[in-house]
Amino acid sequence: MTAKTHAIVLLSGGLDSTTVLAMARAQGFQCHTLAVSYGQRHSVELSAARRISMLLGATEHRQMHVDLAGIGGSALTDPRIAVPEAPTGGIPITYVPARNTLFLSLALGWAEVVGAEDIFIGVNAVDYSGYPDCRPEFIAAFETLAALATRAGAEGGALRIQAPLIAMSKAQIIRAGVELGVDYGETVSCYQANAGWGACGRCDSCRLRREGFIAAGVPDPTRYAANPV
Amino acid sequence: MTAKTHAIVLLSGGLDSTTVLAMARAQGFQCHTLAVSYGQRHSVELSAARRISMLLGATEHRQMHVDLAGIGGSALTDPRIAVPEAPTGGIPITYVPARNTLFLSLALGWAEVVGAEDIFIGVNAVDYSGYPDCRPEFIAAFETLAALATRAGAEGGALRIQAPLIAMSKAQIIRAGVELGVDYGETVSCYQANAGWGACGRCDSCRLRREGFIAAGVPDPTRYAANPV
Repeated sequence: MTAKTHAIVLLSGGLDSTTVLAMARAQGFQCHTLAVSYGQRHSVELSAARRISMLLGATEHRQMHVDLAGIGGSALTDPRIAVPEAPTGGIPITYVPARNTLFLSLALGWAEVVGAEDIFIGVNAVDYSGYPDCRPEFIAAFETLAALATRAGAEGGALRIQAPLIAMSKAQIIRAGVELGVDYGETVSCYQANAGWGACGRCDSCRLRREGFIAAGVPDPTRYAANPV
Repeated sequence: MTAKTHAIVLLSGGLDSTTVLAMARAQGFQCHTLAVSYGQRHSVELSAARRISMLLGATEHRQMHVDLAGIGGSALTDPRIAVPEAPTGGIPITYVPARNTLFLSLALGWAEVVGAEDIFIGVNAVDYSGYPDCRPEFIAAFETLAALATRAGAEGGALRIQAPLIAMSKAQIIRAGVELGVDYGETVSCYQANAGWGACGRCDSCRLRREGFIAAGVPDPTRYAANPV
């Protein structure tokens, strides 16, 4: 692979996607990072994404908007639905309908324009929240779709959906990121982080993150709004 | 099928998607129509979509925004790229990267929220402009993806992508719509229609539409801005 190869990296500003960006950079990709604003409560992620993109030497950062709040149906986009602070079983109410499908579709469009043959996404099927669009079979189906959906695919080009974290535990992800020099103090994972980045320490995302640092044996640099439970 | 079955219908306000809405209504679906604003030049389509949704008895109409102009790369979203007025061969510059993938993804999210098992889209592989995301294999791949991407799919539910026009000629589409009582004078197909709905009569979309009316033997109700060439 040449050092000139372009990739789109979906970057939320959280722990997982930041690790993915570090991995793509370590492989020599010129990274075009994409943060999607979708009416999420935790928009503090969006400024974290911009900052992390610069810190990790991405070529270009863009923020695009899709109207997932207009669709509704999730605690992450609908202020009338509370974010649960304990596991509920099944697919949780923090699931945003079609979110990863939309994110990958935006990345796909941008990949066509910049001539990128790789799209990186930080989905994870181990320490995850039970979302259907985080599974390996979903990623494989999107890669098949991408080849059919695009000019490049129709003309015989390749388009790979790279999900390097998909089979890793949170602890493995954290250890891999630390080896690549990632400062996780810059990342925001909490579903209800406030503008001062204070993480609640109680939501599903905070819980998975906190347990990950403990399991990895790495000090947790997260700034909590209050002492976690 | 009961008359209570819900469907999402992607509605651009053009000839094809209006015919699809008429077909879905004739099959007894309660139709939730979705117009997507994506920075297109021909935003006059968006008001046509809203009007047509009401005229054809849809249950609900929504307009959602995605930032395809931010991606760029198409004559339909980038004012620096001219809309061609003659066929150019290959995939034309009016192709919007990942457009149908994004449209179907938004429809998918809304389908999950309203409990619709059917998504209708007016793509056509016969009298079309050579876009890769209008082919039957693209639609089939999206249906596979949809089953994997959603809560309903993960829990064993169905999700069908219905593309009833895919194998029809423009003349057949027009005849089918006329039989269902569609007034094509309400629809807007032109890539550069102005606010008074005057169609240019020269772009690819106008040309296909005009030839369709001639082939169907149906008077063309299109309001042209000037005499077509």
